Amino acid sequence: MAKIMTVPAETAQLDVRAYMSDVGRQAREASRAMARAGTRVKDAALLAIAAQLLANEAALLAANARDLEQGRAAGLDAALLDRLTLNTAGITGMAEGLRQIAALPDPVGEITDMNYRPSGIQVGRMRVPLGVIGIIYESRPNVTADAAALCLKSGNAAILRGGSEAFHSNRAIAACIHAGLEAAGLPRHAVQVMETTDRAAVGLLITMPEYVDVIVPRGGKGLIERISAEARVPVIKHLNGICHVYIDDRADRDKAVRIAFNAKTHRYGVCNAMETLLVAEGVAAQVLPELGRLYGEKGVELRGCPATRAILAQAVEATAEDWDTEYLAPILSIRVVPGLEEAIEHIHRHSSGHTESIVTEDIGRARRFLTEVDSSSVMVNASTRFADGFEYGLGAEIGISTDKIHARGPVGLEGLTSRKYIVVGDGHIRE
Amino acid sequence: MAKIMTVPAETAQLDVRAYMSDVGRQAREASRAMARAGTRVKDAALLAIAAQLLANEAALLAANARDLEQGRAAGLDAALLDRLTLNTAGITGMAEGLRQIAALPDPVGEITDMNYRPSGIQVGRMRVPLGVIGIIYESRPNVTADAAALCLKSGNAAILRGGSEAFHSNRAIAACIHAGLEAAGLPRHAVQVMETTDRAAVGLLITMPEYVDVIVPRGGKGLIERISAEARVPVIKHLNGICHVYIDDRADRDKAVRIAFNAKTHRYGVCNAMETLLVAEGVAAQVLPELGRLYGEKGVELRGCPATRAILAQAVEATAEDWDTEYLAPILSIRVVPGLEEAIEHIHRHSSGHTESIVTEDIGRARRFLTEVDSSSVMVNASTRFADGFEYGLGAEIGISTDKIHARGPVGLEGLTSRKYIVVGDGHIRE
Repeated sequence: MAKIMTVPAETAQLDVRAYMSDVGRQAREASRAMARAGTRVKDAALLAIAAQLLANEAALLAANARDLEQGRAAGLDAALLDRLTLNTAGITGMAEGLRQIAALPDPVGEITDMNYRPSGIQVGRMRVPLGVIGIIYESRPNVTADAAALCLKSGNAAILRGGSEAFHSNRAIAACIHAGLEAAGLPRHAVQVMETTDRAAVGLLITMPEYVDVIVPRGGKGLIERISAEARVPVIKHLNGICHVYIDDRADRDKAVRIAFNAKTHRYGVCNAMETLLVAEGVAAQVLPELGRLYGEKGVELRGCPATRAILAQAVEATAEDWDTEYLAPILSIRVVPGLEEAIEHIHRHSSGHTESIVTEDIGRARRFLTEVDSSSVMVNASTRFADGFEYGLGAEIGISTDKIHARGPVGLEGLTSRKYIVVGDGHIRE
Repeated sequence: MAKIMTVPAETAQLDVRAYMSDVGRQAREASRAMARAGTRVKDAALLAIAAQLLANEAALLAANARDLEQGRAAGLDAALLDRLTLNTAGITGMAEGLRQIAALPDPVGEITDMNYRPSGIQVGRMRVPLGVIGIIYESRPNVTADAAALCLKSGNAAILRGGSEAFHSNRAIAACIHAGLEAAGLPRHAVQVMETTDRAAVGLLITMPEYVDVIVPRGGKGLIERISAEARVPVIKHLNGICHVYIDDRADRDKAVRIAFNAKTHRYGVCNAMETLLVAEGVAAQVLPELGRLYGEKGVELRGCPATRAILAQAVEATAEDWDTEYLAPILSIRVVPGLEEAIEHIHRHSSGHTESIVTEDIGRARRFLTEVDSSSVMVNASTRFADGFEYGLGAEIGISTDKIHARGPVGLEGLTSRKYIVVGDGHIRE
């Protein structure tokens, strides 16, 4: 029997450090080749990866089965096991996603605002990749293919760190990605899936500004807050979505009911679902009874302010905490407000800056709401559920940013690029 | 005689914390009013501040004299005292700067990319202020007026922290700013000049994400690195400028000499001055002797690679460190390279990502350089000295960003804004 070696903690950490340094350096090198790669080559790689995924279905399912088995043994709950599961439809979906990203216009190299200046030089801006993007995510293995595809199309190198529970699935997907990259003549290090589940590796990934240009965490609020707190690299973060619909007293009653119902009940566990409904006191008695009936049919628990409860007997009393809670569940807080001014004030105090919508027929109030509400998406007479990269026409989405800096709202390919200045002269010097 | 009280360190820190918390909350409140303020009101405030500065020249000069006196007593060097000095021309210049910013187009509210989507909603993007901007700078008091004006025009509230050596000058300028804001009906807290020279206050300013949306440090590399390391708020940073000019072997000799001479000698202490000259070996013998003569006349010290020194006897040997040094002085490192490939490689290894220029008549090489060099400004046949907000037509400049995220290159009003998504429907819901 072979001697069992135990690696001292310190040595293990040194190994992780060396490993991450290699990963970073390889990514930086690959990013140069990716920045140079033409559209045709990048699209060929995306299509080749899609073909690889379909051709290796059996291997992917086997790897996933291993993860599921370990997950069950480790006592993961049903919801987590469900997110972890890869099946034939999931693999076909990944391949289809890659083809859709191949079909999108290439953002890289776009030149805009090119103008002559009085000095005689021409100045413009060219869209360029960010460089190396680190993506940290949780259990869904399809994120591995999606995130790799978005980084690849936007000319970036990617370092992907999936959940440890999806380790074998992610490794099998990575093999398909590498085969596809190499088939198209691109460096395999353009997409690296981290080969360690050591938590220290994440700590290193987010503190290597020399190798990593931006971190995109995809996951729960806890993950994102932890990463933001420790990162020494810019983070494009998507915190929570405490989204509001405000029904103005000049709202069309039917539109108001339709939007408020859809924004809450279309899907519960999503960041663009409405969590708080604000209603102008002038229309509360007209819209709340019908909404109360509809929410009741769906089993939505209502938590209201005193004025709401005077109209909706079934509503329980909302606590101060309710106005700051992202339920992600069939629960809704409702508050009656005097009017637009107070609705905006409530939103500024309690919103997470994700998405807010006003229902009104009054163009002046719509204009004010659009201008004054400081959220990544601000809407008039539309359901908050539209706040989504696909609905907005971005073609794909790596997340929804609740930051103000760089990318705000749904982030597609453009959010993974920056713009540099380009200057063309003919021997021009500064006098 | 009054009893002298000594404040215990702990109490002093508590006071700073309470003070900064007040400053932050007041700025956040004022930022709402600023975001709503119309162009005419903001421009009126800028013009009123300009008028206040001119009307209060005597008070400004007296305050500045106090700073200069204390600075001399504290043994500040001549260069620092020079930067600290405010005279009539300086005050006129500040007022003129304010008028120029008033004359610029208002970036806030611009709606772009408004399109119908298949669902029937209209989706577009609206340019909006970032919110609260913290600016940390060193001795020049005119930055107080410049920075305030840029934040004001872009609809932001500003918290300004100048150098302690300019304390009285900045306070006098702040009085003019407040008078101008109030004359235009804007809140005085829209621009707050910090009333403490306690270093802990800066530490608090850069770690209050609830009150501050972005920090712009203006100063030396040391200041910026320290702030970046400690900030918990996004930082738009301007690190050093190790700028390169590459003279290709297909360069026009006259343009090459003119540009390489101008990029080094037009001004020495600026971030867009060339620090390293790269020359293709095929033209080194044609351009270096003439350049050596011109640099010699100007007293520029040359530090060269062996191939350079074989042509220019006066060049001393460049050390490895030279390629990574921002001289900000009449010193130039020169390296002969085989060609474009090696020039780009050298730039990727040693550039600080600020500005690089190629001199070539070959359109293919120009295209490659523009595409592959990953710096905030990339130029063809132009002096690096053009990398400047005014030369680029931004009308004003808060700094030059060497970051890739958000703003890159010269940062004007646009860099102090973000874009939110706006959605207009007519009762649209997600099916």
